[in-house]
Amino acid sequence: MSEYKVPLRDLQFVRDEVLDFYALWRTLPGCEDATEDIVSAILNEEVKFCENELAPLNQSGDEEGCTWHKDGSVTTPRGFKEVYQAYVKGGWPMLSVPLEHGGQGLPDSLSLVFNEMKGSANWSWNMYPGLSKSAMHLLQEHASEEQKKTYLRPLVEGTWMGTMCLTEAHCGTDLGLLRTKAEPQDDNTYKISGTKIFISAGEHDMAENIIHLVLARLPDAPDGTRGISIFIVPKLLADGSRNAVTCGSLEHKMGIHGNATCVMNFDGARGYLIGEPNRGLNYMFTMMNSARIGIAIQGLTHAEVALQLATSYARERLQMRSLTGPKNPDGAADPIIVHPDVRRMLLTCKAFAEGGRLMINYLSKYTDIETRSHDEAAVSEAGDLLSLLTPVAKAFLTETGFECANLGMQVLGGHGYIREWGAEQNVRDSRISMLYEGTTGIQALDLIGRKVLGSGGELLKRFTNIITGFSQDNAGHETIGKFVEILTDLVDEWGEVTADIGVRAVKNADEVGGVSVDYLMYSGYVSLAFFWALAAKTAADKLEAGTDEQLYYKTKLQTATFYYERILPRTRTHVLNMKSPVSTLMDVDESCFVSVGN
Amino acid sequence: MSEYKVPLRDLQFVRDEVLDFYALWRTLPGCEDATEDIVSAILNEEVKFCENELAPLNQSGDEEGCTWHKDGSVTTPRGFKEVYQAYVKGGWPMLSVPLEHGGQGLPDSLSLVFNEMKGSANWSWNMYPGLSKSAMHLLQEHASEEQKKTYLRPLVEGTWMGTMCLTEAHCGTDLGLLRTKAEPQDDNTYKISGTKIFISAGEHDMAENIIHLVLARLPDAPDGTRGISIFIVPKLLADGSRNAVTCGSLEHKMGIHGNATCVMNFDGARGYLIGEPNRGLNYMFTMMNSARIGIAIQGLTHAEVALQLATSYARERLQMRSLTGPKNPDGAADPIIVHPDVRRMLLTCKAFAEGGRLMINYLSKYTDIETRSHDEAAVSEAGDLLSLLTPVAKAFLTETGFECANLGMQVLGGHGYIREWGAEQNVRDSRISMLYEGTTGIQALDLIGRKVLGSGGELLKRFTNIITGFSQDNAGHETIGKFVEILTDLVDEWGEVTADIGVRAVKNADEVGGVSVDYLMYSGYVSLAFFWALAAKTAADKLEAGTDEQLYYKTKLQTATFYYERILPRTRTHVLNMKSPVSTLMDVDESCFVSVGN
Repeated sequence: MSEYKVPLRDLQFVRDEVLDFYALWRTLPGCEDATEDIVSAILNEEVKFCENELAPLNQSGDEEGCTWHKDGSVTTPRGFKEVYQAYVKGGWPMLSVPLEHGGQGLPDSLSLVFNEMKGSANWSWNMYPGLSKSAMHLLQEHASEEQKKTYLRPLVEGTWMGTMCLTEAHCGTDLGLLRTKAEPQDDNTYKISGTKIFISAGEHDMAENIIHLVLARLPDAPDGTRGISIFIVPKLLADGSRNAVTCGSLEHKMGIHGNATCVMNFDGARGYLIGEPNRGLNYMFTMMNSARIGIAIQGLTHAEVALQLATSYARERLQMRSLTGPKNPDGAADPIIVHPDVRRMLLTCKAFAEGGRLMINYLSKYTDIETRSHDEAAVSEAGDLLSLLTPVAKAFLTETGFECANLGMQVLGGHGYIREWGAEQNVRDSRISMLYEGTTGIQALDLIGRKVLGSGGELLKRFTNIITGFSQDNAGHETIGKFVEILTDLVDEWGEVTADIGVRAVKNADEVGGVSVDYLMYSGYVSLAFFWALAAKTAADKLEAGTDEQLYYKTKLQTATFYYERILPRTRTHVLNMKSPVSTLMDVDESCFVSVGN
Repeated sequence: MSEYKVPLRDLQFVRDEVLDFYALWRTLPGCEDATEDIVSAILNEEVKFCENELAPLNQSGDEEGCTWHKDGSVTTPRGFKEVYQAYVKGGWPMLSVPLEHGGQGLPDSLSLVFNEMKGSANWSWNMYPGLSKSAMHLLQEHASEEQKKTYLRPLVEGTWMGTMCLTEAHCGTDLGLLRTKAEPQDDNTYKISGTKIFISAGEHDMAENIIHLVLARLPDAPDGTRGISIFIVPKLLADGSRNAVTCGSLEHKMGIHGNATCVMNFDGARGYLIGEPNRGLNYMFTMMNSARIGIAIQGLTHAEVALQLATSYARERLQMRSLTGPKNPDGAADPIIVHPDVRRMLLTCKAFAEGGRLMINYLSKYTDIETRSHDEAAVSEAGDLLSLLTPVAKAFLTETGFECANLGMQVLGGHGYIREWGAEQNVRDSRISMLYEGTTGIQALDLIGRKVLGSGGELLKRFTNIITGFSQDNAGHETIGKFVEILTDLVDEWGEVTADIGVRAVKNADEVGGVSVDYLMYSGYVSLAFFWALAAKTAADKLEAGTDEQLYYKTKLQTATFYYERILPRTRTHVLNMKSPVSTLMDVDESCFVSVGN
């Protein structure tokens, strides 16, 4: 297989040319250090790390997987531990951790760029520091000063790592059902008992200690989601002794084999309450956006990897002749990139990879604003946009990322199905992204129910006003006017379908669930149409101003055209689906879905 | 995981009620024996075999896989060999082999029903007799009487098995490039030398001997596809000695682990020419329809398995409450089948599984006619319809089968990603179906290029005339009139988009390749709309006539409504995509698909 290369030119286009992060950072408190020199030096080091250290372990990590031993210890694939040590030595875990917690205080969005690179190079490995990052994030926000001193510092330094222990066998989406118990002890600690499943990085050999953040229920806690507290449960206690938490087994998964996905048994393990009792889910919610954006990035990484793998194969593989006559007359056949349908598949990957990159970085710009700005109106707008667009990005980019992973594999034909080429691993690894951190269905309900209808349409308007402003500024534009026209109609239609669902929901709440995934995907396609129009505008400006990268910018415009002509028509299907009444789904008798034995 | 059950009621609906095979068989020469009593006795035995013998080995076969040994021998997963012996003992290999070749002479379509059952129960296992069947088929048609006596008889009896050896590392789709050599010897045999890859069932421990049918090139053969001959290369020669053909290794695949997919080395192996020199590809083409229908069936099997797995999970898994209030108030939560989006996923699987079953059996009815009828006009019509609809069925049912496999997995949430539940195996096993026997892209070019435009639209008209006849008979029908109206418009549109592509193709042949997959999927959705209208008509008739299976037939009508409301809108996207000029794909510079290093 060809090795992953960081699409640095495209990252520059997105961040420096379309979104102009430097202009933002010059006005954001605490981002003054993020100058072009410093950032590009950091990026260059990150590129080296990802291409030279991480990417070479991606396939071997998948083949070897993790190994569980009878004593409950887990060995990660060959090389994972050493690369992590290099990662710690490089100071990478602390990159965008605030200075007061011992970090380097660089903007969050820089971590997200690195996340895309690391994730594309080796998603399974990237999950280990990813989970640590989530744990740090929660501790930063909600732990006591003493807890921060004890647990956050070593996490920031990277010598310790963290996990999030939420899911139990009988409850994933519905955390209100969870049963793990926390019994208060005389010394202000708690005895935690229960079994958690699907715990990513739950046990491994990469760090000196593992800090589990565990959702559990106090004896007097109310039922349901209001009775959940969150506890720090270290693998090793302060005196170095082993806490009563062990990995019972590894899950046998379709992919991400390099990641240790554990069943964790808590047998009266010592735990420390974070914050107040029964507020666990609230604390979790404060990090939901960043966790979901993390998985949205995963969607993008699989699209990028698919694009790179398939393009490299399509340019080399000789098979059949072009329908319009030989293009490689001296060869035995033409490279398959001459075939229009192969190009359709590659351009689909390209449109979602590059468009998705723009979507992610657009969101991460608002993440920087939300975290750093002192301007209340700007923070509020950023919060609203993140609230609206995070479920869209998470579900839409993972669904399309999986589509791209499959198209990438399809370009390779039968070889795509064979492990050695890497395309089938990309498919397997990507499949989890539509499931964890809330399935596509859950994101869809969050979007239409909680965010759009829940705000009386206000959150949606925040975003469509931006699109409308852009459209008004560029109406009749020589190059992108055609995109703007379509975009304007789509924004009107977005409002109409939303209003229609709102009206139907009043009569029957199930109407929302019947169209939610269509609504989310529709929202994703319209949003991406905006991002592609943004990209096209920048490219058109550059071409007009004169550039020695004619080909690069022309390809941007061509890819935008491809998106509008060959992808955006999918909205027509979703609009029609959203008109269908929910009775079509609900009238079917529960016993009649399967025809066996009728 | 829940075990697969044969959807016998639905098979009866499709074959006895909608398509009325018995009426056909009463008029078909040689099918007189296929009476209701005999057929239902056979089906009952087949159901037992699939549910009790095959299905229990599906998951273990995936986990264990095949083992290659240093001497080139291959061990199949535990139980595979024993079940094959039971299969042979039951006389199943000879079911629809003509009497003159030692078979039971029953209609081909009965084998296809069995193929669906076996395939759903255990696709990997089913591939072994499947490949044998293909080899038998080719020998029946093209081998000499002596070759038939020597090789066909033991294949029919099942004591020997067969393979098809086509693909080489540098050529899959483009067989014209193949390099395997056949050198004539003095004794009228040939020395075969070369390496074949992706050879399903190439080596295993299930049969006494393996008969390879190998494509190779004679010394004086013309270049390209006109210079390929086909040879019989037995693993064991007549004197019991070992021929110079060995399995060099097993491919490491994404799925179908129970099937031995081999690299086969031919080192001057003794081979026997079938038929005339340089006619190998022509001989292969005579069995292309049946091989492709075999894989179309695979698509259907994965949709059915997904439906069964996901329905059983959705009825048991308690998670969250219905948006319209608790439906299981005494339980901790409601079963997830109360959620509209879960039902949308299940109904999608149901619409493709049951609709696909109708499509397959509709084709297999024409297979029976083509093989058996003495009515020239009927044979010609059957040939035309099979020629048109086979690439549609192969690509459309495998694409939608993979979609269903993924939806089935999605219903299981995180558990779907874990091996024990079976849903991820269904996804992995199904993924190959869009690749082998001609990728989706190849089927699409075959459909629009060779079949539709190549016949000046005549083949398409054969089918649309049937639809139009049905529509005219049922226009204004109280229950299905709404379907008929849509269907009528679609048939008109099908003709229009075809004509448009034909016109564009005259100016630029690439226009065909630019829209081919959209055209194929569009054709699939319209065809399935016809099949669902057929099903709805039968259900409406039964309900009108009075039945004690009200619920069964009502569900058929509801599923037809779901198909028309929630699936058929996908045609809108494909129609718009087909209007896009191929320049959108071809103008992109070959060097610009990936943005790395630009």
